[in-house]
Amino acid sequence: MDIRAAVAHAPGQPLTLETVQLDGPRSGEVLVEIKATGLCHTDAYTLSGKDPEGLFPAILGHEGAGVVVEVGAGVTSLQAGDHVIPLYVPECRNCEFCLSQKTNLCQAIRLTQGRGMMPDGSSRFSLQGKPLHHYMGTSTFANYTVVPEIALAKIRPDAPFDKVCYIGCGVTTGLGAVINTAKVEPGSKVIVFGLGGIGLNVIQGARLVGADMIVGVDINDRKRPLAEKFGMTHFVNPQEVAGDLVTCLLDLTHGGADYTFECIGNVDIMRQALESCHKGWGESIIIGVAGSGEEIRTRPFQLVTGRVWRGTAFGGAKGRTDVPKIVDWYMNGKINIDDLITHTLPLDQINEGFELMHHGEGIRSVVVF
Amino acid sequence: MDIRAAVAHAPGQPLTLETVQLDGPRSGEVLVEIKATGLCHTDAYTLSGKDPEGLFPAILGHEGAGVVVEVGAGVTSLQAGDHVIPLYVPECRNCEFCLSQKTNLCQAIRLTQGRGMMPDGSSRFSLQGKPLHHYMGTSTFANYTVVPEIALAKIRPDAPFDKVCYIGCGVTTGLGAVINTAKVEPGSKVIVFGLGGIGLNVIQGARLVGADMIVGVDINDRKRPLAEKFGMTHFVNPQEVAGDLVTCLLDLTHGGADYTFECIGNVDIMRQALESCHKGWGESIIIGVAGSGEEIRTRPFQLVTGRVWRGTAFGGAKGRTDVPKIVDWYMNGKINIDDLITHTLPLDQINEGFELMHHGEGIRSVVVF
Repeated sequence: MDIRAAVAHAPGQPLTLETVQLDGPRSGEVLVEIKATGLCHTDAYTLSGKDPEGLFPAILGHEGAGVVVEVGAGVTSLQAGDHVIPLYVPECRNCEFCLSQKTNLCQAIRLTQGRGMMPDGSSRFSLQGKPLHHYMGTSTFANYTVVPEIALAKIRPDAPFDKVCYIGCGVTTGLGAVINTAKVEPGSKVIVFGLGGIGLNVIQGARLVGADMIVGVDINDRKRPLAEKFGMTHFVNPQEVAGDLVTCLLDLTHGGADYTFECIGNVDIMRQALESCHKGWGESIIIGVAGSGEEIRTRPFQLVTGRVWRGTAFGGAKGRTDVPKIVDWYMNGKINIDDLITHTLPLDQINEGFELMHHGEGIRSVVVF
Repeated sequence: MDIRAAVAHAPGQPLTLETVQLDGPRSGEVLVEIKATGLCHTDAYTLSGKDPEGLFPAILGHEGAGVVVEVGAGVTSLQAGDHVIPLYVPECRNCEFCLSQKTNLCQAIRLTQGRGMMPDGSSRFSLQGKPLHHYMGTSTFANYTVVPEIALAKIRPDAPFDKVCYIGCGVTTGLGAVINTAKVEPGSKVIVFGLGGIGLNVIQGARLVGADMIVGVDINDRKRPLAEKFGMTHFVNPQEVAGDLVTCLLDLTHGGADYTFECIGNVDIMRQALESCHKGWGESIIIGVAGSGEEIRTRPFQLVTGRVWRGTAFGGAKGRTDVPKIVDWYMNGKINIDDLITHTLPLDQINEGFELMHHGEGIRSVVVF
């Protein structure tokens, strides 16, 4: 079938709106009509050419929501009409990783997903007879896409696509880092480095689980009002701190935070986040993605005296299990997404959405189809 | 009273046997007759002058066992005749750290202990009228010492001093890293870097909790037989590995270890230990003490894909609670200490004991009084 997609032909170039050919779903696959998709820094990172694993030409996008149109052979958990969120981290519930109960990093289709292909090793997308790469197993910058059954979370039908699409990445990453990875307890002291979309979702996650002190750290004072609305109790602008930031944060938290979250992707800030943890038990969670080849460092004494260094991907969430719950939380008013969707655009303005991101305008731009 | 002690007068010099004056126990303090003490690398590190926190002159030693002679005012949990192991990590059960239930790093007397003094800020030791520093709150290189009540574990009276003194540091550090810090589960795959005293105790800890695969890594093939006796199932000599050690270990463990332990104090090996962990859930525990100012480093991707970096001090053990249990385990044959005590010396040969350590002879030397 002919579909409409924003194609990434080459690194560093804008996306091109094209009529693309999409093959129907094969065994274990599902055809989804995408109704909305967020634009995430990860899409921009790959498009920039800096992502060493980036493949071109491709259809990017990994933060979508839509409706099942058709299911392939053997698909049992979904049917036409179901509302779904595509998952760049699938949940097969059968691989060593899923069965470990210790990680969300299902490996069932990792190799082909990394190669920009469906699990059988081929692509469903083509342009004038030449295949296009899938991206993160989702390729939501298209009005139709094909996704493996194990990479689709079924959600309630009354949830608005243009809001809950954000649960496909940013919301779950931030909330999940708090709930699944750090397992923040009520009464905790938390520090969040970087008050972009991920940081704000970490903040509302920390509020959700009952943290007492939620410190936001950002060099942009304009981030403060929204962060406070989301639950931030204290704000620190490193540029206004006289002296060492870590010392300032240790003082503010009376010895260090129980949990810190790095939501930027800066290896120097990752170190500050670790060293702002409380001796004996503080845990620091890396969420941000650092540049290729960059390294974190600290004195081992920081760990020997009880701090713990962790990371998280997709907030440690098992998508088919956890994403529908987070949609419920949104629909029940437990979390705020509306204030994070600051721009809504049609597909043919998708490049303008990336421009907004590069200029730091707003939090999240969403493309609606 | 006059006591007999090995005094560290200055960094880099041998200990000197001296008749030292010891004041009696003040409020909350206990006079202990030391019956045996192990010689640990930490004593040698401080004696060498490399320890930036080392103080001189001092009475070193922190791995002792003995008998209570007299208790000071207010001491309620001990009485003359009780057998005890001094604790360089006390357990007051009242400070924020003890009450957190998340760490063993009781801070009740940390400041004065770090200054080489008793909690009231003074020393009980003096030589010809000049005070000597206490060391790690224990100073077991003396036939009598004074220790705070909260820094003494009461043990069963039938346990041999010349063996269970080792529980005062090395045994507990190794076992505890497995049990308290890593919380290794039955069936786990474990890699231990460095097969000295700590490494061997990690190995027997891993066996105790039912690990399936216990890989030992050491450049000295002669460490192999004893490590196998303690439970090691596989041995890797990095000098005999063609290619990258981490790759070799990932292959051997089919994707990485569930838990790895660095028992050397080498920051490069700490990185290898982390990177030998299984994606998704592997945890690496730093036990070894690195040189002053040295730093660990890795790519944050290692953590974002699910590995966890931790450290441990005194094996995460709460001494007054856990040390008596470990003494029971030894007496009941659950753990082996006898094979680790390779040399027993009188106090006046204590410098020969350090020579044995520096030459890598045996595992542990114990001084008996």
